[in-house]
Amino acid sequence: MPIQNESIKIPEPALRRLPWYLSYVKLLKSQGEVIVSSTQIAKKIDVSASQIAKDLSYVDINGKTRVGYDIDELISVLETFLGFKKSHKAVLFGVGSLGAALLSDSGLEQYGLKIIAGFDVNPAIVNQQVHHIPVFHTDEFFERNEKIQAEIGILTVPPGYAQEVSDYMIRGGIKGIWNFTPFRIRVPEGVVLQNTSLYAHLAVMFNRLGS
Amino acid sequence: MPIQNESIKIPEPALRRLPWYLSYVKLLKSQGEVIVSSTQIAKKIDVSASQIAKDLSYVDINGKTRVGYDIDELISVLETFLGFKKSHKAVLFGVGSLGAALLSDSGLEQYGLKIIAGFDVNPAIVNQQVHHIPVFHTDEFFERNEKIQAEIGILTVPPGYAQEVSDYMIRGGIKGIWNFTPFRIRVPEGVVLQNTSLYAHLAVMFNRLGS
Repeated sequence: MPIQNESIKIPEPALRRLPWYLSYVKLLKSQGEVIVSSTQIAKKIDVSASQIAKDLSYVDINGKTRVGYDIDELISVLETFLGFKKSHKAVLFGVGSLGAALLSDSGLEQYGLKIIAGFDVNPAIVNQQVHHIPVFHTDEFFERNEKIQAEIGILTVPPGYAQEVSDYMIRGGIKGIWNFTPFRIRVPEGVVLQNTSLYAHLAVMFNRLGS
Repeated sequence: MPIQNESIKIPEPALRRLPWYLSYVKLLKSQGEVIVSSTQIAKKIDVSASQIAKDLSYVDINGKTRVGYDIDELISVLETFLGFKKSHKAVLFGVGSLGAALLSDSGLEQYGLKIIAGFDVNPAIVNQQVHHIPVFHTDEFFERNEKIQAEIGILTVPPGYAQEVSDYMIRGGIKGIWNFTPFRIRVPEGVVLQNTSLYAHLAVMFNRLGS
C-alpha cells in the first residue's frame, strides 16, 4: 500500500534510514547491479525487509513484486526526496575551529547544503574568507540575510552563547537550526532543530570502550 | 537511591543527556552561580527534574536535598565521567574534505579525542601533514598502529569503501569506530560503533522545512 500523498509526513526514524538505503544502492550501482529488492537491502543493513518496504512507501517509487526496484530510479527518487539534489542556502555562526572545519567541507554541498556566509564577532576573522566563503560581523546578519535569504543556520558558537545566537538567527529569518554545540537550545514552534552532538557521541564511545 | 557501582552500565540515552547538563552547568558557573538543583536544570532543558536526578545518580555525585549540587564538583565529576579529561588516541581514515575538516578541528581534543594520524591512499596527501597531523598510506596502518596504539578509528572514506575500511581498521586493533559516512556499516560484537549521520540530519532538516 504505497503512500504517495505528499501531505503525509514521513516519520523521522524512517527519514533517517533512507540515506542508508541510498548509499547501499549507490554501492550496488557501482558494482554494475540494476535491480534491487528490499530483501537484498535488508541482508546488508540491520533493518527488516518489511520495514524497508514500508519506509520506501513514503517515497514515490514502485517496486515490482518478486523483482524489486530499478536502481537508477531508486537513487534518483531518494536523492530528490531527501533534498540532496537541490541547493539549500545556509549561514554559519561561530567561525571557530569546528565552524571553519565545516566551511571547508565541500561534501556538504554535494548533499544539498550551500553555506553562503559565516558570521562571527572576532575581528581577526570578520571580513576574511574561509575556504572562499566570506565571514561577516554578526551585527550585519539581519541586513545581509535580506539578500542571502538563507533559511538554515548552522550553530558552532561556544556553548554559552548557543541560545542567544539561536534566538538572534531566528529573528533574522532562519527557519531551521543545525546545532553542533553541546548546549540544549530551545526554539519556537515551527522552527526546525537538528542536533549533531559530536561530544555526546564521543562520550558514549569513551564510556563503552571503558577508557 | 544513587547508583554508584561502576559496574552498572549507564543507559545510552542517559549518557547522551549528560553533556547537556554539563554545558548548562558550565554556563551557570560563568555567570557566577555556585549551586544548582535538578529542578533548575530542568527549567532550561526539556528533561524532567526527576529524569535529571536519575541520570546524575549514575555519576559519582551527591546532591543535597533541597539545596542542589555544588557546580564546581558537578562539572569536574561530569567531565571525568564522560571521559573528556583524558586523552583518547584516534586515527582517521579518509582524508578527503570532511576528514581534513575533522583533522583541523582542535575542539575535539578539548573533549578528550586526540587524532594521532590520518590514513589515505591518495598519493597527493600521503606523507603530507594536515593541521600538523601526519597522513600515512593506508597500507602502513597495521605497522603504524603497533606504535600508535589507537583504539578509536574515525571513518570518513567514500561510502562505497566504508565497510571494507572498517573491517581493516578492526583487524589493525581498532576497538571503536566513529562512522561519519552515510553507509550503515556492521561491526563484530564487542566493537563500539557510533554513527554521526550529518546527511541524515540534513535530510530531516530539508524535509521538515518543506524545501
